[in-house]
Amino acid sequence: MHIVDLIAAKRDGQAIGAEDLHRLIAGYTATDIPDYQMAAFLMAGYLRGFTDAETVALTDAMLASGDRLDLSELSGPTVDKHSTGGVGDSTTLVVAPLAAELGMQIIKLSGRGLGFTGGTLDKLESIPGMRTDLTTADLVAQVDRIGLAVCAQTDDLVPADRAMYALRDVTATVGNTALIASSIMSKKLAGGAHAILLDVKVGSGAFMKTVGDARELAEVCVALGTSAGRATRAVITDMSQPLADTVGNAIEVREAIEVLRGDRHSRFAELCLDLAGHLAALSGTAPDAAAGRELAARALHSGAGLDRFRMLIEAQGGDPRVVEDTSLLPIAPISLPIHATQDAWLATVDAEAVGRASGALGAGRETLGAVIDPAVGLALDVKIGDRVHDGQVIGRILARTGDEARRGEHAVLAALGWSAQAIQAPPLIHAVVDPPASGPDHRPMARTAAHVS
Amino acid sequence: MHIVDLIAAKRDGQAIGAEDLHRLIAGYTATDIPDYQMAAFLMAGYLRGFTDAETVALTDAMLASGDRLDLSELSGPTVDKHSTGGVGDSTTLVVAPLAAELGMQIIKLSGRGLGFTGGTLDKLESIPGMRTDLTTADLVAQVDRIGLAVCAQTDDLVPADRAMYALRDVTATVGNTALIASSIMSKKLAGGAHAILLDVKVGSGAFMKTVGDARELAEVCVALGTSAGRATRAVITDMSQPLADTVGNAIEVREAIEVLRGDRHSRFAELCLDLAGHLAALSGTAPDAAAGRELAARALHSGAGLDRFRMLIEAQGGDPRVVEDTSLLPIAPISLPIHATQDAWLATVDAEAVGRASGALGAGRETLGAVIDPAVGLALDVKIGDRVHDGQVIGRILARTGDEARRGEHAVLAALGWSAQAIQAPPLIHAVVDPPASGPDHRPMARTAAHVS
Repeated sequence: MHIVDLIAAKRDGQAIGAEDLHRLIAGYTATDIPDYQMAAFLMAGYLRGFTDAETVALTDAMLASGDRLDLSELSGPTVDKHSTGGVGDSTTLVVAPLAAELGMQIIKLSGRGLGFTGGTLDKLESIPGMRTDLTTADLVAQVDRIGLAVCAQTDDLVPADRAMYALRDVTATVGNTALIASSIMSKKLAGGAHAILLDVKVGSGAFMKTVGDARELAEVCVALGTSAGRATRAVITDMSQPLADTVGNAIEVREAIEVLRGDRHSRFAELCLDLAGHLAALSGTAPDAAAGRELAARALHSGAGLDRFRMLIEAQGGDPRVVEDTSLLPIAPISLPIHATQDAWLATVDAEAVGRASGALGAGRETLGAVIDPAVGLALDVKIGDRVHDGQVIGRILARTGDEARRGEHAVLAALGWSAQAIQAPPLIHAVVDPPASGPDHRPMARTAAHVS
Repeated sequence: MHIVDLIAAKRDGQAIGAEDLHRLIAGYTATDIPDYQMAAFLMAGYLRGFTDAETVALTDAMLASGDRLDLSELSGPTVDKHSTGGVGDSTTLVVAPLAAELGMQIIKLSGRGLGFTGGTLDKLESIPGMRTDLTTADLVAQVDRIGLAVCAQTDDLVPADRAMYALRDVTATVGNTALIASSIMSKKLAGGAHAILLDVKVGSGAFMKTVGDARELAEVCVALGTSAGRATRAVITDMSQPLADTVGNAIEVREAIEVLRGDRHSRFAELCLDLAGHLAALSGTAPDAAAGRELAARALHSGAGLDRFRMLIEAQGGDPRVVEDTSLLPIAPISLPIHATQDAWLATVDAEAVGRASGALGAGRETLGAVIDPAVGLALDVKIGDRVHDGQVIGRILARTGDEARRGEHAVLAALGWSAQAIQAPPLIHAVVDPPASGPDHRPMARTAAHVS
């Protein structure tokens, strides 16, 4: 089909065949098809939706656009974990060492996206000396030796997604379930791991604002992974407030180290154990998630998880002494406490606004190529449902200047909503999404064509 | 509004304010807004539709993107005529001289589009020496002197439309009423004439395939013209078969000259008189269209219309002797008669296929910059409802080679559908669309948001 006819067919609500979708994606990746035609196609698809078969074909086509990681030399079980993104979400730093300690081989490839706070790579790079640009050979050798690696994905991995994501970002075509799912899953499938755990965030700090939307995305992703022969599960987790107590880069690494030391008992620590438990179940390392969680908790409390984190740092050129002495991590000169201004229960947090406050301090990247300041960030020590007293210190701002710190304090306070009555804490995990028992062929994916009424 | 937010608003079905639409069009014209963002906006608008107010603002914004012709030095009444395009549609060549003879001042600006046959400019340029690249000063002086000019619109006239039309063509976003209407009317308004007659074609050789679609477009265009203070009327005319008996370039000029000589009594000649009559009524030159038609018929039969055509040719550098001796026009070496293959009534014509047959001979332009062969084309002497006999000559092909001529003959015969029963000829004019008597503010324009169900 000629490209204009293909755009017209999608515009008119027709399903596009797999062969045509492959040609579209291959042509776009090769820059034979220009951005403006892909933009028109994406908007037509956003509004008209994609069928299950189209979503599978789109994912296949994106996967076919580049290299795939070959993990055949690893003994396994190989696992991967993906978060759809939130504020104060540094679970990888805790979960990956625990998973490795439980005998899994975990390869975490990350891109460098835009965001209020840095990504996993930026956080790790706040550790002096730490490198995240491993070659594939080094990556596989490292995982074989110590069970884990966290590194930047190469440009050869799903180049179609990189180009399409950049285009979607500037053409208001990000928020379509099929497009999001094919973007996530093409990269996960290219990553090569046999077991894939998806952490789909929902709430004020997440892209998905309702559990229903998150479940729709989770179901499509799980179906895509399962139909590609991978053990795939999604957990829908709460992002109605920052997950960890800190938001930034070095400050989040510090918190992760404290969790691995067993020093912090928090929602963040609980979720890390839950996720490690699900990974263990998914990979066959434990009979079920509860048993896996129990194993992970033991690895954490014995200090073995922290040891694995040290091995990761050492293997990737970082200074391993940070796990004992977090003062080796960079820290901004100004530390301004945030005080509560009333006696009340914390009722709501605009987690995105808290993330923006951290980004405004310099912890994020608004344009590609912008330099992240690893030393700035913030702590927010209260969670929804906590009771505070007027004047109580509920957090602090790490900033380069006093002015920036005061602006950060105001921004954080403006993001908090209070109640005179006691408030229930939100659940940590809203749902677990597994493939239907009868296999992916016997149950339709979530519908994605419901945007136009 | 930021451009991505503006695209998102249209994507979500919101109406965009006039100021934002102006910024969008101005930014796109200045190439500050890239093609891919405009493509996404156009597809969102195609599927979500535009309100009446948006269509007016879009037209205004496009008009504001470039120069407007200043006709204030002309005594008037200034008139313009626009056809939405069809096969064998050379009414301008007859109507413009008749209108000028009736005392109107007619400025016909044309672009060079893609098409099966050439445009009005290409047809005129088949006359030896004829130029169509007049300066604005020459154009106004010529109209002041002889009442008519037909020339190429400059790049400074509605540059936004030129850029947007090229983009719509390759992104499957042509067929939206608001976009078509704003494209047509921004150019007509920039052309400066006080009275605007729109010839909206409907049928197998037109973009609009149903009278309902044509009426929707006509109503929006008339409302746009009226709200801009121009006397505007649309006639919806039949394009279920080629309008004239010939399709090509020089061959259509020859037919137009024969009509102006009074030698041809045909549907084409009838429509030319009707259109001249409507122009006379619209400009106040005649009390109504019927009286205007009567005046036009007299101008035709007296030879005064042909004289005006001679003046036009002379003024624009062409050889005026062609009006007496059409053998001065280029003609291809091969002339192959087309024979009917049965005794029957002509029931249907795929006019677009007939146009493509002419284009395949070299009469059209598939890519911008392609060279048109003025000497090739075809004649089809039968119309829907005509009775023919097996073996009767019903037309001919003018071609460069015998092979091309035979291919053309087959293509034309394949485009004809026959009936064993008598068939009624279709009407020449399906409807006349005037602004509502109560003014444009009191009646909604045709709805344009009905594409997505």
